[in-house]
Amino acid sequence: MNPCDFEHEVPDPAAAAPGTPDAPAVEPWRETRVVGTRQPRVDAYDRVSGTAVYASDVSLPGMLHAAVTRCPHGHARVTRVDTSRAERMPGVRAVLTARSPGTDIGWYPGPKGPMSTIFDPHCRFAGEEVAAVAADTPYQAQDAARAIEVDYDVLPFAVDVDAARAPGATPILGDSNLAGEPRVAQRGEVAAGFATADAIVEGEFSTAAELHVPIELHGCVARWDGARLVVWDSLQGVFPAQATLARALRLPLARVRVIGPYMGGGFGSKLDTGKYAVIAALLAQRTGRPVRLFMTREETMLAIGNRPGVRMRVKVGAKKDGTLTAIELDCVGSGGAYSADGTSGVDYQALDLYRCPNVRTQSTNVFVNLGPERPFRAPGHPQGSWGLEQALDLLAIRLNLDPVTLRLRNLTEVSQARPNQPRYTSTGFRQCLEEGAKAFGWAEARARATGTGPLRRGVGMAGGMWRGGGGGPPSTIVVSLRPDGSADLNMGASDLGTGTKTWAVMIVAEELGIPMDRISVEHADTGTTQFTGPSGGSKTVPTEAPAIRSAVLELKRQVIELAAAQLGADPATLGVAGGAVVSNTGATPPLPFDRLRALGQRGVLVGVGIRTPDTHGLAVNPFAAHFAEVEVNVRTGEVKMTRYLAAQDSGRVMNRLTYDNQVFGAITQGAGLALTEERVADAAHHGRVLTTNLHDYKVPTALDVPPEPVCLPIDPQDTICNSTGAKGLGEPALVPAAAAVANAVAHAIGRRVAHAPITPARVLEALAAPPAQKREARS
Amino acid sequence: MNPCDFEHEVPDPAAAAPGTPDAPAVEPWRETRVVGTRQPRVDAYDRVSGTAVYASDVSLPGMLHAAVTRCPHGHARVTRVDTSRAERMPGVRAVLTARSPGTDIGWYPGPKGPMSTIFDPHCRFAGEEVAAVAADTPYQAQDAARAIEVDYDVLPFAVDVDAARAPGATPILGDSNLAGEPRVAQRGEVAAGFATADAIVEGEFSTAAELHVPIELHGCVARWDGARLVVWDSLQGVFPAQATLARALRLPLARVRVIGPYMGGGFGSKLDTGKYAVIAALLAQRTGRPVRLFMTREETMLAIGNRPGVRMRVKVGAKKDGTLTAIELDCVGSGGAYSADGTSGVDYQALDLYRCPNVRTQSTNVFVNLGPERPFRAPGHPQGSWGLEQALDLLAIRLNLDPVTLRLRNLTEVSQARPNQPRYTSTGFRQCLEEGAKAFGWAEARARATGTGPLRRGVGMAGGMWRGGGGGPPSTIVVSLRPDGSADLNMGASDLGTGTKTWAVMIVAEELGIPMDRISVEHADTGTTQFTGPSGGSKTVPTEAPAIRSAVLELKRQVIELAAAQLGADPATLGVAGGAVVSNTGATPPLPFDRLRALGQRGVLVGVGIRTPDTHGLAVNPFAAHFAEVEVNVRTGEVKMTRYLAAQDSGRVMNRLTYDNQVFGAITQGAGLALTEERVADAAHHGRVLTTNLHDYKVPTALDVPPEPVCLPIDPQDTICNSTGAKGLGEPALVPAAAAVANAVAHAIGRRVAHAPITPARVLEALAAPPAQKREARS
Repeated sequence: MNPCDFEHEVPDPAAAAPGTPDAPAVEPWRETRVVGTRQPRVDAYDRVSGTAVYASDVSLPGMLHAAVTRCPHGHARVTRVDTSRAERMPGVRAVLTARSPGTDIGWYPGPKGPMSTIFDPHCRFAGEEVAAVAADTPYQAQDAARAIEVDYDVLPFAVDVDAARAPGATPILGDSNLAGEPRVAQRGEVAAGFATADAIVEGEFSTAAELHVPIELHGCVARWDGARLVVWDSLQGVFPAQATLARALRLPLARVRVIGPYMGGGFGSKLDTGKYAVIAALLAQRTGRPVRLFMTREETMLAIGNRPGVRMRVKVGAKKDGTLTAIELDCVGSGGAYSADGTSGVDYQALDLYRCPNVRTQSTNVFVNLGPERPFRAPGHPQGSWGLEQALDLLAIRLNLDPVTLRLRNLTEVSQARPNQPRYTSTGFRQCLEEGAKAFGWAEARARATGTGPLRRGVGMAGGMWRGGGGGPPSTIVVSLRPDGSADLNMGASDLGTGTKTWAVMIVAEELGIPMDRISVEHADTGTTQFTGPSGGSKTVPTEAPAIRSAVLELKRQVIELAAAQLGADPATLGVAGGAVVSNTGATPPLPFDRLRALGQRGVLVGVGIRTPDTHGLAVNPFAAHFAEVEVNVRTGEVKMTRYLAAQDSGRVMNRLTYDNQVFGAITQGAGLALTEERVADAAHHGRVLTTNLHDYKVPTALDVPPEPVCLPIDPQDTICNSTGAKGLGEPALVPAAAAVANAVAHAIGRRVAHAPITPARVLEALAAPPAQKREARS
Repeated sequence: MNPCDFEHEVPDPAAAAPGTPDAPAVEPWRETRVVGTRQPRVDAYDRVSGTAVYASDVSLPGMLHAAVTRCPHGHARVTRVDTSRAERMPGVRAVLTARSPGTDIGWYPGPKGPMSTIFDPHCRFAGEEVAAVAADTPYQAQDAARAIEVDYDVLPFAVDVDAARAPGATPILGDSNLAGEPRVAQRGEVAAGFATADAIVEGEFSTAAELHVPIELHGCVARWDGARLVVWDSLQGVFPAQATLARALRLPLARVRVIGPYMGGGFGSKLDTGKYAVIAALLAQRTGRPVRLFMTREETMLAIGNRPGVRMRVKVGAKKDGTLTAIELDCVGSGGAYSADGTSGVDYQALDLYRCPNVRTQSTNVFVNLGPERPFRAPGHPQGSWGLEQALDLLAIRLNLDPVTLRLRNLTEVSQARPNQPRYTSTGFRQCLEEGAKAFGWAEARARATGTGPLRRGVGMAGGMWRGGGGGPPSTIVVSLRPDGSADLNMGASDLGTGTKTWAVMIVAEELGIPMDRISVEHADTGTTQFTGPSGGSKTVPTEAPAIRSAVLELKRQVIELAAAQLGADPATLGVAGGAVVSNTGATPPLPFDRLRALGQRGVLVGVGIRTPDTHGLAVNPFAAHFAEVEVNVRTGEVKMTRYLAAQDSGRVMNRLTYDNQVFGAITQGAGLALTEERVADAAHHGRVLTTNLHDYKVPTALDVPPEPVCLPIDPQDTICNSTGAKGLGEPALVPAAAAVANAVAHAIGRRVAHAPITPARVLEALAAPPAQKREARS
């Protein structure tokens, strides 16, 4: 039930011993014909025409609709639940409360076991589930959910870390609201490091809590196929959801089928299913009918997860030439009511991105009366980048160094955050900085005057990395060749909307030499596909691509062996190209797959492939350098992004079109962190989240970023990371984006807005601050 | 498009060379723990509770309903189709006629190519498709289909073989209504054989055409998933349908997904899809919406197929001791308008069941203006048995031998109908006769007086075999083991309602030692399963069971290898039992699957298995001997079946419960052929089939057969036929049933009704016949 297991990719110490890589088990690609080109999505038509069936589109005969009664208080104990009125309402088929069998299962896993149940009488945030209803129509269900009468013993609440830590604060979980001891990571001696520094800068930075806001809401349709549960759910990972539901409903895995063929975004919030699926399954069991339970936008914003805001103090010391001598980061955050992971990942940039012998980070987590965090695209990383990269810009000013130059002075070829500091299989970070700066016209733009009118132009940049992105086991893939030479790819991975299916098909097309439209994909269904973790952690490409390749290579091996028997040829002299077995020596004419007799006789040939570990203890990470130009209106405080370039080392580009798409999406999401997004809770009255719609919670769109952002792929031609040379892209593309915008704003107005989002009010406040705080001269 | 390819299992001459079998590649079972027990179906609850989703239950959002306009004339040419009125009717979304693109594809394959198109202007039977409509509701579609105005040039028709063969008959296909030259099969010299005979009997026998009448009607729902067609169809074989639709719609196989999870019976009529699926796919393509097209009961009875009636002359000669010296069979039948297979299989009993050196059969096929035949449970065999087994009873009377004794005198250990006459891997026919007679109390019942009142009691028997039933390649199976030790079985085969899923799960449970409720099945879906032929020809068990076993054994091999690595044990010392890896030497305690580390790490282990040929040129056939007791009311002519025993050599019993079920169903279907079923066409007026509902066409039910029929499995412990020792059951259980009933009636009343069905009118007619025809004395 802890999706973080998959997301956080804690390096395996046993695998981290540095060493010289052996030759990879599978020959890396040298030239590619399909991989690396721009390909429209294989399901583009389905998606734009509306024929694609998302989980939220599933409609089954006799299906009931469910709704949930939620606690309106930030902190309360349920003293009485009266469902009698609701049960008598028209269309109502079943009501579930904490007294219903099956609802007493543990939820929200913690170090001491589950922290809650499905309908826990102790409600720790406004929005917690108290009861649920299934009825003939959604409106009947919602009316009945509202008609359930609940008495609460309302408790004092705290929605910010200071209030939660204050003496006398009401404990939320256990005795104290401190979620364990602060987590400290350290190498070298920071005091000694600062002692040798020629310059030291220090600053306080903070980010706001963000909400995931995928286009498709969270929810599912649950149906019992006899003794087997079938759930259509909008998920990044059907297999974690299968495991969660099997545990919750005490079923063997084989009796839980989770299907997630199309989904409309997740960003980490859909790595696993939620309470809603257990509720729907129990209601379906009780009524003997399929049950649809999708949350409203408001409900997802109350209860489904968030990227925690963080407050951090960053201190950096360096020699005159810019060589870092020490970094210190102290951050505090909250994962909400049930998670101690509010600061997870915040310190990773400080620990690993730049070469520095002395680093100390301290991360403090506090429970508050708000919904629990959930992994959100590079958990912690954009927040940490927000602090570190702004501090580095302060340092560059202090040392009178160009920000790009400062960063280039502190490159490393080893992963400092991992035990034994293994080398990277590849790092294109230098190229990202150098080629990115060149392509952006960094030097010219940085030097250019911004004018003295109301519109001030500035440029900023930031570097970044993602601590995952290497992928790895497990994944098992099946590829089937049909007698007419068309093929089916069977994979467990979900396609969040990132184009997973498309590059997966490209790999099969690459290896078999058949057109992409002769390859179908079955995916994301625990009943029909094999296994993989959720699509997240920027591991989908580097995990699945080698597994797919391995399955196709195994299929090719069989094809060649059978063709050799048919042709009376030596298999070693045969290869596959253009949908045919071809002779390397020209001894026999090409044998098209549909003329391979054994294939016709068997009806199918099946290749099974698994993702094997093959980095030999080296580290794999993707890197990025982002460059932003903004225009700040010093009268209104408005910030407009005018130009953007993202240089990404994510290894080999699989599909240039979706590669660009994913980077543009990250830029847009980075703009949200930097400029507009902020979850606001009512600290004065009831502790409820107030920003529960798309008017109050402002997600930027394509119109809020430059119309033509530039994506610059940097491919270090990594032949070790895996057999495809591809690394993760989704998260590293986001990590530096907000910091780059913040640095550009500082460059534009000569003042630093250290607290995200950089709203017009904060810009005006910064501009109005007394000169003592105007520390940033124009570089 | 020719399902007969799969059904007819013509022996491969290359594989038929006699030889001594090698040891089988896979060790046969010695003792079984699950296989052979009585197990309720794994989907019993789903089926009886109504939660099982059959193709006819599929209901998709936005789905349209289709209906077909059919020719009302037995023979006609379409001269004009006016759809304008239909197109203006409420709810109508699309109309298809012969002018619509995509409808010009060839249909009904013949030796000279396709004989028709989807909407062929030359309508060769009443019920042929002329146009189709898709509308919002089924009623709107049916109304609009009726509103399509069609002008016909009505032609003379013929609905029986004599009329069709008569001079001046209007040709139906080509120049003559003779469907090719008569087919002759011959060994030895029948004239010489009859010359050495001590006794010769000869008789004319006939059967009526039967309709399949599965509970679930024929039809599908078609939906375009972008450029991929998805069809839910009620089918015995999803892969033949995939191939048919791919050809018809000019698509790669990978872009046609055919799904048939539950189905309500087929009996051969659903080995492949029909025109309806092409029509639905074209309508769905044109409208951009899912389209449901299910035929009405009347439409299926007009157009979907039938078991042809046959008229035959049988002549048998024997020595005094009963040793057969010659058999001659001359039969004539019609496969309807488009098939020359009307007599296929009729001669097989004569050619192969009893040892006889001199046999000649001649089969003549005639085209008539009726819907084409379709394989129907043991095509031709019950008809041939009807003639041969009655002739043998005549012979027994002539020689004053007991009918069982006569048959026991003519046993053979080789398959005489195959080239080179290979030995059988096993034949339990002698045991079927001997043990069946004993268990039935044959001798006592045969000798017992029947009384002289209006109720006359008699017993009869018949032997039988099915020319298929050995199974064989191709089938590819995938079995997946989940980390909690539960498992998924993935197989292409359909479950017609015969219990395929259940015995399949039993095999997995047998091999892994896990409970059946921890095993799920995904099946009959070309998008998610691998490949197999249709479930038909009594080949499902002998084809799939060894393939499943092979997949599980491959899975076990991996489990043992990984467990050996974990335990530091020699894999050769390990086995699998009770869901754990166990040491044969007791060196290590059992390692349950859920503690196998590599399984937990990979998330799944996958075994792929295929059906390999392994009979080494020997012949595999199932055998049967049936014993029936009837009570005939000589005043009303009614026949009542009072007692029945079916002794079946189908090799190993997989699931005793469904084994019995299948035999009881066969007895019931045999009672239909013998006593009640008859397709009647109006030869005088329009050539239409008149028996198009369940009142006019009389299908017997469980109330029409003895309440406690006995099924006696005979297992010759065949270790060669395949790795499970199982042979086919569905068809051999039907073959002798009708003949056994006919022989019992003859025994009861001392008159023979040679023409099926034995209606009360025919019984009375026989009783009223002049003494010259009362040739049958009581034996």
